[in-house]
Amino acid sequence: MPHAVRREIVQPDGRRVYLYGDFVPAPEDYQAPAMPNGVYQRRWNPLRREWVLVAASRQARTFLPERTACPLCPSRPGHSSEIPASRYQAAVFENRFPAMVAPGGHCEVVVYTDQHDGSFATLPDDRLQLLADVWTDRYRELSRRPDVRYVFIFENRGEQVGVTLHHPHGQIYAYSFIPPVPATELRRQTRGCLQCRLIRDELDGKRRVLINGAGIVAYVPGYARWPYEVHVTSRTHRASLAAMTPALRMSLLTSMQRVARAYDRLFETPMPYMMVMHQAPTGAKPPTQAHLHVEFYPTLRERGKLKYLAGSESGAGVFINDTLAEESADRLRALLE
Amino acid sequence: MPHAVRREIVQPDGRRVYLYGDFVPAPEDYQAPAMPNGVYQRRWNPLRREWVLVAASRQARTFLPERTACPLCPSRPGHSSEIPASRYQAAVFENRFPAMVAPGGHCEVVVYTDQHDGSFATLPDDRLQLLADVWTDRYRELSRRPDVRYVFIFENRGEQVGVTLHHPHGQIYAYSFIPPVPATELRRQTRGCLQCRLIRDELDGKRRVLINGAGIVAYVPGYARWPYEVHVTSRTHRASLAAMTPALRMSLLTSMQRVARAYDRLFETPMPYMMVMHQAPTGAKPPTQAHLHVEFYPTLRERGKLKYLAGSESGAGVFINDTLAEESADRLRALLE
Repeated sequence: MPHAVRREIVQPDGRRVYLYGDFVPAPEDYQAPAMPNGVYQRRWNPLRREWVLVAASRQARTFLPERTACPLCPSRPGHSSEIPASRYQAAVFENRFPAMVAPGGHCEVVVYTDQHDGSFATLPDDRLQLLADVWTDRYRELSRRPDVRYVFIFENRGEQVGVTLHHPHGQIYAYSFIPPVPATELRRQTRGCLQCRLIRDELDGKRRVLINGAGIVAYVPGYARWPYEVHVTSRTHRASLAAMTPALRMSLLTSMQRVARAYDRLFETPMPYMMVMHQAPTGAKPPTQAHLHVEFYPTLRERGKLKYLAGSESGAGVFINDTLAEESADRLRALLE
Repeated sequence: MPHAVRREIVQPDGRRVYLYGDFVPAPEDYQAPAMPNGVYQRRWNPLRREWVLVAASRQARTFLPERTACPLCPSRPGHSSEIPASRYQAAVFENRFPAMVAPGGHCEVVVYTDQHDGSFATLPDDRLQLLADVWTDRYRELSRRPDVRYVFIFENRGEQVGVTLHHPHGQIYAYSFIPPVPATELRRQTRGCLQCRLIRDELDGKRRVLINGAGIVAYVPGYARWPYEVHVTSRTHRASLAAMTPALRMSLLTSMQRVARAYDRLFETPMPYMMVMHQAPTGAKPPTQAHLHVEFYPTLRERGKLKYLAGSESGAGVFINDTLAEESADRLRALLE
């Protein structure tokens, strides 16, 4: 950790909590919440040739609690949250309602700040810097575990994508296999890096580029599946956060935040979205040629209207996009600060 | 058409309407709605190796109209619907807000009945029989078009999967390529039929079988992605509706309806779902070994709680199922009539 100090705490049920930066210890009456029993299996879907994770304890997971019961807020006398601290800057903990358990996978929750209100879009610069360090540290550490082949950093934002907690946070899934989407991306990397070529095409065309500066490029890809999908990536080839300088990482997160802010302005409402980060797989012999990129999938196609995944998307695998990527880029570009 | 008579009507904008069975002509003041201009493109997504359909006129499509303005109800003096008939039994028309246009694809709407209320689950037997004939006719006819490689019959049901019209109806997309999901299924058909093997496994195991009779098998697949996913298929190898006898087709639809009724009982509310039918591709040299099967993806995981596709599903391609397929099968089996 070049910038942030990390403190590791093991909860009574064995789950680890990592506090990054400064913190104040938990109140004396702190009682760690315990992980419920569950069934965790990986099942092979031979029709789609993919793994399905079965996690049959998650039904009981915390669902839109009252603000005073927020499990991601600092603990206080009488309220023991997931975070054994009375104040903290950023925290990571092993999910109490995971999709998979070790060995065979790891699920972590990344809490961006101890402030309940706000979002990734409103994080101040020092928290953004800390988050870059946290993500990099988690990528490095999870990559070293023998059962991990792919570290997947993502954020679900908004009730419309199923978010059950409002406190600003993201997640990390460390899979014991390379998931289908990044696997497909990597299969194409036969002659040079596909992502490098896509960036070059977008920069040549200019038409869909939102941001080009400080080593980072953001654009609405011409082949976007979602009406306002945006990809954010490093202009030169970088396999992962760990292969970036701290300055380039901060530039990446700053660009991501500019995109997230434009989203919130687009329909004058907090935009529900998924943010996913594709990086190099890990393990003994990972495929080469991965190029870090972040994909934002915002789920509104108009004010008050969600883009749904229906028969064509779910049953055939064919996305229908109601918008032209070029026009979406124009609208978002006008909203960038 | 062995059972139903088909009458074809061409609207002024060139879109075709097919009336199946008996009907009463439209009122004299009938004014056909016209298709708006739009941009229709097929774009290649090189990261996911899939086509994305761009359809940039659909934003204006009819969205939950008042009941009296329903575009799928029969026309009457003063109300011209999509159907140029004052009464009808079943109708198919080319979508006025399509995802693709000829040449390069076809989008049809299949109206199950002229009765506004009800659903696939409540169709009487004679309409179910007619629907079997309609689907078979559309599969045959669309298969013969030179720009069609795959005929995809499906239904989106419920506002929670983006349905914009409540009148009982489904859709057909005739793609000019084999979509990724059926393409993946067909790639596995190296030694015999995969679907035949999966059926045998389910019947041997018994544990997840819901229906086994009259040539049709329905089960919750062990590798279900959705909490109450059900597959319905012919016990012996049948490539498509066109390869089935009328009796077997009726048995298929009756079994599908039993599943749909069990869904509506499960949480005592109309279950939102996607129903998709995978059949043999068409065209000059279609892959062999396709085996017709219907997949139901109901989107509720509990009463009032939707299963969302979030970061893991959308960005990594890894589904997380909160339920055990075996327990889901038990619950659904108890609700079958």
